Amino acid sequence: MTDLQSLNAPELQELKSQLTRRYREFQSKNITLDMTRGKPCSEQLDLAMDMMNCLKEGGHFAQDGTDCRNYGGLDGLPEAKALFAEYMGVQTDEIIIGASSSLNMMHDTFMRAMVTGVTDDTAPWLKQPLIKFLCPSPGYDRHFHICEYLGIEMITVEMNADGPDMDAVEKLVKADERIKGIWCVPKYSNPTGVVYSDDVVDRLAGMQVKARDFRILWDNAYAVHDLTETPARLKNLLSVCKQAGNPDRVLMWGSTSKISFAGSGIAMMAGSKSNVDRAKKQIAFQTIGPDKLNQLRHVRYFKNMSGITDHMKKHAAILKPKFETVQTVLQNELGGKNIADWSQPEGGYFVSLNTLEGCATAVVQMASEAGVKLTPAGATFPYKKDPLNRNIRLAPSFPPLQDIRQAMELVSICVQLVSIDKILGK
Amino acid sequence: MTDLQSLNAPELQELKSQLTRRYREFQSKNITLDMTRGKPCSEQLDLAMDMMNCLKEGGHFAQDGTDCRNYGGLDGLPEAKALFAEYMGVQTDEIIIGASSSLNMMHDTFMRAMVTGVTDDTAPWLKQPLIKFLCPSPGYDRHFHICEYLGIEMITVEMNADGPDMDAVEKLVKADERIKGIWCVPKYSNPTGVVYSDDVVDRLAGMQVKARDFRILWDNAYAVHDLTETPARLKNLLSVCKQAGNPDRVLMWGSTSKISFAGSGIAMMAGSKSNVDRAKKQIAFQTIGPDKLNQLRHVRYFKNMSGITDHMKKHAAILKPKFETVQTVLQNELGGKNIADWSQPEGGYFVSLNTLEGCATAVVQMASEAGVKLTPAGATFPYKKDPLNRNIRLAPSFPPLQDIRQAMELVSICVQLVSIDKILGK
Repeated sequence: MTDLQSLNAPELQELKSQLTRRYREFQSKNITLDMTRGKPCSEQLDLAMDMMNCLKEGGHFAQDGTDCRNYGGLDGLPEAKALFAEYMGVQTDEIIIGASSSLNMMHDTFMRAMVTGVTDDTAPWLKQPLIKFLCPSPGYDRHFHICEYLGIEMITVEMNADGPDMDAVEKLVKADERIKGIWCVPKYSNPTGVVYSDDVVDRLAGMQVKARDFRILWDNAYAVHDLTETPARLKNLLSVCKQAGNPDRVLMWGSTSKISFAGSGIAMMAGSKSNVDRAKKQIAFQTIGPDKLNQLRHVRYFKNMSGITDHMKKHAAILKPKFETVQTVLQNELGGKNIADWSQPEGGYFVSLNTLEGCATAVVQMASEAGVKLTPAGATFPYKKDPLNRNIRLAPSFPPLQDIRQAMELVSICVQLVSIDKILGK
Repeated sequence: MTDLQSLNAPELQELKSQLTRRYREFQSKNITLDMTRGKPCSEQLDLAMDMMNCLKEGGHFAQDGTDCRNYGGLDGLPEAKALFAEYMGVQTDEIIIGASSSLNMMHDTFMRAMVTGVTDDTAPWLKQPLIKFLCPSPGYDRHFHICEYLGIEMITVEMNADGPDMDAVEKLVKADERIKGIWCVPKYSNPTGVVYSDDVVDRLAGMQVKARDFRILWDNAYAVHDLTETPARLKNLLSVCKQAGNPDRVLMWGSTSKISFAGSGIAMMAGSKSNVDRAKKQIAFQTIGPDKLNQLRHVRYFKNMSGITDHMKKHAAILKPKFETVQTVLQNELGGKNIADWSQPEGGYFVSLNTLEGCATAVVQMASEAGVKLTPAGATFPYKKDPLNRNIRLAPSFPPLQDIRQAMELVSICVQLVSIDKILGK
């Protein structure tokens, strides 16, 4: 483990030759590996197969007698609301069970805000001159895409080890009425794996905000997606917001896409009763109700929160070796070389790799030319532009272990080669 | 069968006494019947029970190898697109398979129009001074609710026996740029049962329209929901629009909610490739993809169009006696009395009853006081206001035969009582 930045030019050239040989070897193997997709692997999906056919003949009635094969139930079955209210840490009148996509519910929340506003006494966002959003970055590309699509100006805020840079956030939201919200993935943040600290949660709940229609968009996508025996605990933002006298400040989402079946799970939205009631009134124009049979499948299969957390231990058993492999290879290849750092997440779906400044695009390109597909550099930032061009999102959940090992080895070689060129001033 | 309007006052009083006795008898029975709900009955839902568990172990792969338990497939599985493209009479690149609700897809189409406009060279509807929509009435209340919710001004157009009054439609859309569309349920229209004639379809496709962002919203909800052996045929509006040089004029929807399971079916949107491509680009911001397992269930279970039409014959066998009962009781009780007329639909879910002018609200109220719930008078018109206060929507699919008989008898009594009062000038 030598600090590459302490080597002289001939030493770097020698190292470059070795690495180039290894890179060429990879190229000659004609491999095709994909580290871009934050989606479960088949073994994870196999875990819930018994859910697929769990509604036996005559078993399609909810506890209250509802025939789940028929219309109705705008905000979800009572038993689904009960289970997922506990999951989200809210009351049953503070949750809406939706269809299968939480992203869909977030998108629709934006659309409603654009067309009808967020509160009764503020204008539709589309009729306000400019809407801005805070985007702690690196963050989730699909959040940013919604803002870009709707012409909402994104302001990048630095993501620290305990959440967004709250000094910056507080300063911005206090001063600018046009800032209407902040995107948050508060637990095992995509892609950094950061868990928001209690202090950050408290400050988000209590901070002084200029815009009356300001909302914290709390996408708690990885609420139970722990990789360790001692899961991180996230403070309940809705509770803290209530204590701070700002109950309507937060909208929360969750989903079972990475618990049961991706794209065929259950999505949910939660918040103060007032926020939820407002959303329900509007959703009543959109649909007669979501797929209750799928809700029933979930409740029958998981039964209760223990059912969910037990199930997630099986996911962890599959994912842990994959995440460990990423760490092992990165540490072996890049450790102590002073050219990269990376997250060591205790849950979630991603590892965030930072190269030297200005190197990410070249690393992704180089990896691609040897058959390893990485998430495009910049994808984790607003407007797909990483100002320091150094962040690379790694998604180890889907590929098999052997592929991950190979891919990470190649990525490490690319990082070194690109770094050496940078150090050499090329 | 006597024309009530030809009776003198004492005759009417005598008849009123008899009817009042019958009405009181009904009241004393303390019945509770519901004729409001256009939803399938349990027996209909039982028909598709084998679909519930048709994805056996290992059977979750689509024809192209897609693991339907995982993310992806924005516009639907290839085999789902193939089947429902045939269902909708379009090409596979002219359809998007959505989640379970076609109403949801229509609502979202409006939201996209409000925020981003309908074409690249027209303004978002929310940024245009006023948006108007043509609403052939009586029509589907949920269509009208979307317009009302979004502040879109509704213009009532009369519904004739062969579709909307096209003279009125053509005159309006030719003159007013602010009229952006027309709602249509073209086959077995809700609630009149009207099937649009070829001539109406041709005129809709070819008419001169002032607004460049004008759209016909073609909610073909009852495409295969026939009650007779000789189903009505509806001309394919998309084909005719293409022939008329207006391929982008129409957006079409369908759903299996009244084929498989209500609320757990598959919804679809179709139109020109250009319209579908535009929608897909925008839906990509909304979701990673709909529930593919449910698509697979539908394709596996129905297999092909014959599978669907055969299945619908079983629905018809259940529904036909119910619709016949409505006709029989109405004919027996009201036939020849010159105080009401009603539709005799050959498909769909509703019977439309017209009383004498000004009587509908009182009939609904009176029926309710004897335990029979009817759709509120006015519900089938924009702003829930029937200008002639005479239309009542009857929904015979859900209640058992005996209930329908009772309910229709009571409704007939109420119609006569209210009519007599009207004739007597009270």
